[in-house]
Amino acid sequence: MFKINDNYLKLPGSYLFSTIGKKVNAFQAANPDKKVIRLGIGDVTQPLAPAIIEALHSAVDEMADAATFKGYAPDLGYEFLRNAIARNDYKDRGCDISADEIFVSDGAKCDSGNIQEIFSVDNKIAVCDPVYPVYVDTNVMAGRTGTYDASTGMWSDVIYMPCTVDNNFAPDFPKETPDLIYLCFPNNPTGATITKDQLQDWVDYANKVGAVIIYDAAYEAYISEDNVPHSVYECEGARTCAIELKSFSKNAGFTGTRLGYTVIPKDLKAGDVMLHSLWARRHGTKYNGAPYIVQKAGEAVYSPAGKQQLSEQVAYYMNNAKIIKTGLQEAGYTVSGGVNAPYIWLKTPDRMTSWEFFDYLLEHANVVGTPGSGFGPSGEGYFRLTAFGSCENTVEALERIRKM
Amino acid sequence: MFKINDNYLKLPGSYLFSTIGKKVNAFQAANPDKKVIRLGIGDVTQPLAPAIIEALHSAVDEMADAATFKGYAPDLGYEFLRNAIARNDYKDRGCDISADEIFVSDGAKCDSGNIQEIFSVDNKIAVCDPVYPVYVDTNVMAGRTGTYDASTGMWSDVIYMPCTVDNNFAPDFPKETPDLIYLCFPNNPTGATITKDQLQDWVDYANKVGAVIIYDAAYEAYISEDNVPHSVYECEGARTCAIELKSFSKNAGFTGTRLGYTVIPKDLKAGDVMLHSLWARRHGTKYNGAPYIVQKAGEAVYSPAGKQQLSEQVAYYMNNAKIIKTGLQEAGYTVSGGVNAPYIWLKTPDRMTSWEFFDYLLEHANVVGTPGSGFGPSGEGYFRLTAFGSCENTVEALERIRKM
Repeated sequence: MFKINDNYLKLPGSYLFSTIGKKVNAFQAANPDKKVIRLGIGDVTQPLAPAIIEALHSAVDEMADAATFKGYAPDLGYEFLRNAIARNDYKDRGCDISADEIFVSDGAKCDSGNIQEIFSVDNKIAVCDPVYPVYVDTNVMAGRTGTYDASTGMWSDVIYMPCTVDNNFAPDFPKETPDLIYLCFPNNPTGATITKDQLQDWVDYANKVGAVIIYDAAYEAYISEDNVPHSVYECEGARTCAIELKSFSKNAGFTGTRLGYTVIPKDLKAGDVMLHSLWARRHGTKYNGAPYIVQKAGEAVYSPAGKQQLSEQVAYYMNNAKIIKTGLQEAGYTVSGGVNAPYIWLKTPDRMTSWEFFDYLLEHANVVGTPGSGFGPSGEGYFRLTAFGSCENTVEALERIRKM
Repeated sequence: MFKINDNYLKLPGSYLFSTIGKKVNAFQAANPDKKVIRLGIGDVTQPLAPAIIEALHSAVDEMADAATFKGYAPDLGYEFLRNAIARNDYKDRGCDISADEIFVSDGAKCDSGNIQEIFSVDNKIAVCDPVYPVYVDTNVMAGRTGTYDASTGMWSDVIYMPCTVDNNFAPDFPKETPDLIYLCFPNNPTGATITKDQLQDWVDYANKVGAVIIYDAAYEAYISEDNVPHSVYECEGARTCAIELKSFSKNAGFTGTRLGYTVIPKDLKAGDVMLHSLWARRHGTKYNGAPYIVQKAGEAVYSPAGKQQLSEQVAYYMNNAKIIKTGLQEAGYTVSGGVNAPYIWLKTPDRMTSWEFFDYLLEHANVVGTPGSGFGPSGEGYFRLTAFGSCENTVEALERIRKM
């Protein structure tokens, strides 16, 4: 008689954004006349940039002709894309990463969920708290997290690194030594960043204790301040301890187009086994590459026209971030983030819980945000708003919030 | 100190098609003047059909306009596609499968590799021998297969069901009771099929012993004979024991476009837990949907024009199959498959091993095929050729083979 993976049954509730979706749908069904503004999930709203559209049409035409038709892609991704990534995201920043250390995928969510597979189930993970739920949930599914305590919202075998106003939302080194350390900067959900010196300390720490840093740099394009690192490989020694995950969703609006990549330097080893080889084996066995037309679209992200158009798109969203941040501050809220990241992190008023404020905001302003507690216990009492709406909707949402 | 998943280290050699690729590249580098014809990997060569190209261009245009731009897709896939699948692939064939039992993905390779995750590592798998390597390799990675015996090419905890000329390439029920049974018909690699009555026996068997059938129907579009089932759900009782995997790669040429789906009926349960819920949780947590433009392309596969164009494409490949099969027979080879499947399975001549014949064919005819032993121990002494080349190349390959 077959048996299921009962680690799945340990997961409390459903995936955060599915829960929010259901609540919003129920509210909209009960209030069909209300215009709900969604500043909850980190989904973009601006159309794909003209340079990307052009590349997509051109690639579609290639697929229509036997002479230029493309079947299965190379395991690690097309060279034209891996070369563009290596040059623009690494070489031009002085990072020593070569094209064959880059694995193209259909997105950073998949990669951040799948990467744990190449590690032993005995490894102990450390996560920021609050944190993007995928890191913890996928380790729960793998049986790496022990038991869940509903009263604290914590797993017995996970090392939580609280990020609160007390440490300026930058994690301290944990008391217990972790094997895998998930870091995400600019941070989702808090919008906080750390300096290059602070990240260097983490790299030194990981090399010292023999841990791997899984560095999620999905929001790198939103960095506006100097001395905030764009890649973990700006730090000395990162090649022996860090994996980097990147997305095209936020810098180029690919949430519905799907493209991302993972970097595993060949110097990152367990004994004489390269983690690069393990991930290559996984890619070759369980994955068949991102669509050719999407990889061509990814290449256009790095073209001169693409870069120009996308920097304008990022500026558009960051203008929203400014509208949200200043609007909330003027309305008396305590707010952080929104400077190097498209996320604004606010303290809920009147000691409301995160979900109480979610319901309150949905009911009174018809605005959807994300409850901080959905990202971990230290997120309780906080709330995330995103800058990914349209400018008009963002302005209107803040007007409504000010009137509450 | 972090530790790796050392199940990966148990895997012998690299993924079959990567090995072939390296051998072919080495041959081509040493013989730059030789025109190598590839009838090895099951990759298509015909361009995407006009109806699909049109749908792709139209969807790209939607992505260029904020009013029609699409961000994150619904977890299970867009309804327009799931409805088209439910109607055309199931309802029209009298199968009781609803749209919300269909999970759209980026391909059947990913799904066939990932599906084992929702089952306990204690489950014992049964596979046809020879078999598509992904089924076994992904279970090795999960630690479900015991130890590898290089002398037999077999894993200690895998139940092998030999498919040879003696049983007409249709597996017998195994002596030991399995928990998960991988079946693929029309079969990759042998090109064999089983009748509806035979498949009904497997469904009855699975329900009796409490096993789950993972039914890979990737080659369903190539069925030409009556009484060969297109879906496992044509059988009574399959809703309580079977998962079906489908691909758009072979019926619509999507090997480089990436689209597939998995069906899990809500009646398939362990106690009161629906496997549907577990897979939905995995989809929501580790995956972010196939690209919108690709899902629109998938919808066009079911349009009247799409159906007409794709039936012509399938006929084109099946004409190649006929050329290969009759050509080999005329040259004195013992051949099967190629009637309901795009694969031709031949007995190697002169007691050559499969890899010896691979080298012989590459050297003397400059034709690439796939060694049967790469698919499992019972594939030794066999060889696979695919019908997915161009007609001209297929004709030329057979001329060269006849002259060997």
